[in-house]
This record gives sequence, C-alpha cells and structure tokens, in this order.
Amino acid sequence: MDEKRVSVAVIKRLPRYYRFLGDLLDNNINRISSKELSKKMNITASQIRQDLNNFGCFGLQGYGYNVPNLYKEIQKILGLEEEHNMILVGVGNIGRALAQYKSFEKRGFRFVGVFDKNPDLIGKELGNNKIRDINDLSKFLVDTEVNIAVIAVPRNSASKIVEILAINGVKGIWNFSNAELDIPKSMFCENVYLTDSLMTLTYRLHEDEILKKYS
Amino acid sequence: MDEKRVSVAVIKRLPRYYRFLGDLLDNNINRISSKELSKKMNITASQIRQDLNNFGCFGLQGYGYNVPNLYKEIQKILGLEEEHNMILVGVGNIGRALAQYKSFEKRGFRFVGVFDKNPDLIGKELGNNKIRDINDLSKFLVDTEVNIAVIAVPRNSASKIVEILAINGVKGIWNFSNAELDIPKSMFCENVYLTDSLMTLTYRLHEDEILKKYS
Repeated sequence: MDEKRVSVAVIKRLPRYYRFLGDLLDNNINRISSKELSKKMNITASQIRQDLNNFGCFGLQGYGYNVPNLYKEIQKILGLEEEHNMILVGVGNIGRALAQYKSFEKRGFRFVGVFDKNPDLIGKELGNNKIRDINDLSKFLVDTEVNIAVIAVPRNSASKIVEILAINGVKGIWNFSNAELDIPKSMFCENVYLTDSLMTLTYRLHEDEILKKYS
Repeated sequence: MDEKRVSVAVIKRLPRYYRFLGDLLDNNINRISSKELSKKMNITASQIRQDLNNFGCFGLQGYGYNVPNLYKEIQKILGLEEEHNMILVGVGNIGRALAQYKSFEKRGFRFVGVFDKNPDLIGKELGNNKIRDINDLSKFLVDTEVNIAVIAVPRNSASKIVEILAINGVKGIWNFSNAELDIPKSMFCENVYLTDSLMTLTYRLHEDEILKKYS
C-alpha cells in the first residue's frame, strides 16, 4: 500500500477542511462552489480538488460541493465516526487540561484510563477517571483496548512509556512531552511541541532586528 | 527587508535545533560534527549548514559546532534572551494549564495579566495573577506593555479579542482558540490547533482502511 500514501501536507489540511465545513454548516450554508471555498480557506480551488481527489470525487461540475455530505465524508476519512479509547499518562498541568477538554468526548474520544507516578495523585478523581499508578499501566493495557495514549510526562520519562505502549499494541501516540520519541514503525505519533510553537512566535516578533544583525 | 525573510520551514526548525543542542549540553557534549548532528536530527548536514547560514557562519571546517556557542546563538535568534510579557485571555482548562506551565517562566515568559469574562472566576488567583475582568483588557493594555497574548477563548469570541489587542499594539498572538484569526499585517500569530493534531493522528491510525475504501 505504500505507494498510495497520501502526502503529509494533504493529511494536515484535512482537519482544516473539516473545521471550515463545520463553520459553514453552523451558518446553514449547504452548498459552496470550489471558488468560494478556496477564497475562504485561502488555498487554490485546484488544490482543494487535488486534495479531495485522494479520497474520491466529491464535487460536481457547475454545482460545487454539498456541504453536509462533504463534511460527513471528511469526518469518515479522519476516522471520527469511530470511538477512540484514550489513556493519559502524566497528570501535570497539560495532562489535566486535556483530560477535562470537553470537545474530545463530543467527538468520540474517551479517556478510559489516567496514569501518574505521584502517590499523592494516585486514587484521586480526574474527569470520569480515578488516577492510576503508572506501574499498573502494562496490566491495564492487557485488559483494556486502547487506541491512543496521550503522553504528558517530562521528556526523560517518555521513552520508557513508549516501550510499554508498544509491547501492548497501542497504535497511536499524542505526544506533549517535548521529547522526540523513537517509535516502532507499527505505531503513529503526533507531536505537540508547545514551547517550539512559542519560540517560533518570539522569533517572528523580532525577526527584522535579528536579520539586520546577522546579515 | 522583505526579500531577506527566512522561510517558514527554517523558522520551524530553529526551536528543534535549540532542543537538540540543549540535550547535548545536558549530556556535557561541547562539540559535535555536522555529520553527527545531522544523524541525531535526521536531516542532512548540508540542510543544517544552509539553515544556520541564514544567520551567520557558526560551524568550523574540520571542527564542527561548538555546542554551548551555537546554543547561545540560537537562543538569541529565537528571541529568548529578552523578557516577554504575556497575557492570557480565557481561563478554561487549556488556559489554566498554560498559566501554570513552569518552563515558560524559566525562559523569560511571564504572565503579567490573566483575563476571563466569567464573574465566578474574576478575582480568583491563577499562578501569580488575580484573574481580571475581560472588560478591563483595553485599559490594562494602555498601562502595561504586553508582547504576547495567549488566546484560549471559544472560537467565536476570539476575533473580538484580536481587535482589542490590535488597537492596543500587542504584536504577538499565541492562538489556542481553534479559530483562524484574521489579524492585521503588523501582528504575528502562531496557532496551536489541538483537535487538528488529534484528527491527524486518527486519520493515520486507519489510513490503510480508508485508502482501500476510497481508491
């Protein structure tokens, strides 16, 4: 199947299509031309066609896109019609926030287990879960099907967690640990490097000054 | 200055260099060849040279890179040697987590104000701040210099906040609101779309199945 892989750039745009189509639906817009959609999203109409053609033919010449249909198709493509069992590893500030994030549940993402190593936290409630001992992670994964593990531990603890997840067949990692994880090919990892993002912003804020200085 | 702009791809790699060099320093490695660094970071040595050449000449033929020096230079390039006054707008789960994120303070990012519209929250403590009324944001910005506003409000409230920030000369926006903000050219915005990231992961988890179905 490798030759059919969709490019990363296209994959990254899919959630954006989904967001824009959701907005259109919220505004009761049921039909949009590729030109209008292109203007709204600031990408060319031919790019939109190309992107969507990876998955089939969704637009009709002279009609444009049927918004509810396309929204539903992209939902399917993104895997949002399935339920996703998630666990959280690491109940720090970010982990705690994610575990309580309301819109996940609405979209079928459900935290079925929450883990930490801090004895003061273990046994406490977080959302619909009691915080469990990280040492029980392996055992938990034997009994419970988990698709996605949210890793929100400090960076030097992350690789050990990945090992346990890999052995127990967890396929997806959503990584907030600020570490670049070495994961087996059978797994997929999506990284959220918060400090990288903030540093990109500070760079931009003083780019003129920096370029004057270094060039 | 426009012709000298550094490409987005390079800018996005800078924090990554900074992270890797920080790791080397933590492991007391003071010198690294471009070949070794390239292997560690999984990008070509010539790419590294090209990236860094945007800002000057940091490597020495036959010696490689002096890690502490390069780390310090990239720190400067990223604007991390300056202090950054931040405000938080929106004390939900994510906003609360960001306001308490320890590593920001260490790097010179300081929350000088925290705002929400919820009367139950206004006046309560969050980190080193008392939560203020969002209606006082304009007044606050007249009196206090702010470089970066962290926007963590629901998406339909975000554009109004941006207006207030723009009028009052705030240059940087770190956007967690899940909205695509329309910002004036004088401002810079870095988006963290958490649900986009999660959807990218769920797509990957069932990509084989989807491609079989649609192709």
